[in-house]
Amino acid sequence: MVTLDDVREAQARVAPLIRRTPTLPAANLTTATGVELLLKLETMQVTGAFKERGAANCLLQLDDEARARGVFAASAGNHAQGLAIGAKRLGLRATIVMGRFTPRIKVARTRRHGAEVVLFGDDYEAAAAHARELCDRAAGTFVHPFDDDAVIAGQGGIGLELLEDVADLDAVVVPIGGGGLISGVAVAIKGVAPHVKVYGVQSASFAAMARSFASGQLEEVAGARTIAEGIAVRRAHARTFEHIRRYVDDVVSVSEEEIAKAIVMLLEEERVVAEGAGAAPLAAILSGKLPDLTGKRVALLVSGGNIDINLVSSIIERGLVRAARRVRFNMIVPDRPGVLADFSRIVADHGANVMELRHERAFSRTAVGDAEVELFLEVAGPDDIAELRKKLEARGYVIL
Amino acid sequence: MVTLDDVREAQARVAPLIRRTPTLPAANLTTATGVELLLKLETMQVTGAFKERGAANCLLQLDDEARARGVFAASAGNHAQGLAIGAKRLGLRATIVMGRFTPRIKVARTRRHGAEVVLFGDDYEAAAAHARELCDRAAGTFVHPFDDDAVIAGQGGIGLELLEDVADLDAVVVPIGGGGLISGVAVAIKGVAPHVKVYGVQSASFAAMARSFASGQLEEVAGARTIAEGIAVRRAHARTFEHIRRYVDDVVSVSEEEIAKAIVMLLEEERVVAEGAGAAPLAAILSGKLPDLTGKRVALLVSGGNIDINLVSSIIERGLVRAARRVRFNMIVPDRPGVLADFSRIVADHGANVMELRHERAFSRTAVGDAEVELFLEVAGPDDIAELRKKLEARGYVIL
Repeated sequence: MVTLDDVREAQARVAPLIRRTPTLPAANLTTATGVELLLKLETMQVTGAFKERGAANCLLQLDDEARARGVFAASAGNHAQGLAIGAKRLGLRATIVMGRFTPRIKVARTRRHGAEVVLFGDDYEAAAAHARELCDRAAGTFVHPFDDDAVIAGQGGIGLELLEDVADLDAVVVPIGGGGLISGVAVAIKGVAPHVKVYGVQSASFAAMARSFASGQLEEVAGARTIAEGIAVRRAHARTFEHIRRYVDDVVSVSEEEIAKAIVMLLEEERVVAEGAGAAPLAAILSGKLPDLTGKRVALLVSGGNIDINLVSSIIERGLVRAARRVRFNMIVPDRPGVLADFSRIVADHGANVMELRHERAFSRTAVGDAEVELFLEVAGPDDIAELRKKLEARGYVIL
Repeated sequence: MVTLDDVREAQARVAPLIRRTPTLPAANLTTATGVELLLKLETMQVTGAFKERGAANCLLQLDDEARARGVFAASAGNHAQGLAIGAKRLGLRATIVMGRFTPRIKVARTRRHGAEVVLFGDDYEAAAAHARELCDRAAGTFVHPFDDDAVIAGQGGIGLELLEDVADLDAVVVPIGGGGLISGVAVAIKGVAPHVKVYGVQSASFAAMARSFASGQLEEVAGARTIAEGIAVRRAHARTFEHIRRYVDDVVSVSEEEIAKAIVMLLEEERVVAEGAGAAPLAAILSGKLPDLTGKRVALLVSGGNIDINLVSSIIERGLVRAARRVRFNMIVPDRPGVLADFSRIVADHGANVMELRHERAFSRTAVGDAEVELFLEVAGPDDIAELRKKLEARGYVIL
């Protein structure tokens, strides 16, 4: 088990290499949730995520011989960049294996930090096996993203910073994938201030640790597509499970929709860019999974901000739909001149903005003489939708 | 003219009401631009913009009688929220007039901070006239967003913070709309450290102050649609012009495309949410408008982050197109079975992702026997596009 002393030593060791990230009060989210929220912005590390900490703590403990032989990892995500930048800062060689179909931008980001990137295999398992093989061949050091005491201790510095920066903290909410982050943070928090609660949050698509926490034994899940790829880990590992079982107060899980909504709220309410994993703690608050925290002073660990820009716009749309700021009406209308102008007027007078409109006759499911209209609208919220629906129906339009 | 002492007094006065925002090194943008960039994140004020500072400095100087009669403004933007939150903090009444067609979300945001919002008129001028009228009737205090010495002095605190937080600063780059922000900042910077350069950046769509700076007299422009609505001011005002003429080293302007690209780069490279105005300083660097800054240590004033979430996704798309991460190919292909599979294979093997595909025959501009294909692709950059184009052309496809 990692100890408080390990975390303290790690903190001192990595201090010259990593940023002490700001913790900012989230005034608007506090008003919205009734929980006094603070955001620990690990998104402000150079690589945009906390992984630099654990990697640095690991690299700094290698002897000269090990440094000369280089370090290896398999990752297309934040661990790849965190290890790469740590190796660059210390002047040692890093080799990172990624699957063949990794988006080019992720390859470019990791190469930018000086790592050698090897593209191999169709999935993570194949890439990981190849990385181990390359590592063995070079007698190098393989750096696991979470199943490693030095990595766990390195992440724990975040817990110490939180206690130093925030007075009267009641709880910390931390995303869990493999569990390295929360293990280190919980060791730090419970070691220094055992009355501060530590909660973990998983994606419901990858809730292996949440299930393990509930059942008391290591669980594995099938996994599914998730927008929180940073915490998409299928199997609970023994090392982190032991820390979590001992130091964490509860582990909850959140849905994809809840995560999407949290990403949008962080952007819109606090101007914070979070990836899915980083938004998961807020998702847990918003969805009422941690009701005991109402009125409490709570730090949310925004673990990373490396959201694929190609996904941001679709997540925003999804989040807006979820928040009832977008709505699609499928409407049956009489197929005659003037009808389009008529319902458009109702929509405009209501103050809703038309984003898309599709007017179909040939392929319509409706009776002859009717047409089908699909209206995609920007609106102000659920009440607004109900009101507009009423107005259209009062005018005789049938909304499916 | 506002003096350094005015700014210093304002800084002390507003300190209990506003946040001292962080200034963070932008490591990735530094690598990308060759300029050592730091970001002053006024986006981290509670309302997401610097306007709270000037409003607070104004409100704090009102006597009891004036406080009792309330404050008035016309604004649908950051000034509205900044004044509203300042009034709430001091327990006085704020009345804000906005145009009738102001998006509901902006109304809601301002009401959330306790202001009374009056919707009036079809444009800013009508709203402003009404606000003055309401103010006169109540014998209240009208708070102008920039044409006011107390407001200018309040914004200037940002300059003092920058000098305190950043050693060896060479220059500061500041967005200009009405010019209140840069006036205060420049007074502070030139008063304390006259060797530090101060540059202003305008949207090319609203370059009244840039033109005034060049011509030496007050200019007015017609204006146009802009994504930087926070700096959409048509007419240069005498008060700020005098400060800018005296203390600012140069004023440049940037295009809508350059602003869009800067918004995307701040999001993607530094996880910073900036509105158009807030991204304008980076746009000036990226577009080579300030070539003297290469190798220098430069703070960019990210003035605000209140970008309409409804626009974020379209700006991202636009920024990605501009950065050659999106491309549309219009291609002439033979209209026979197997062709779709053939070019799709070339695209897939190249590693480009198809976002949209349209295959048209009936409405095609092509010869009979040919069809037209529109391919909308995610790519890695300009070289990638050129390479893929070559591969498709080598196979006999005609790209229009």
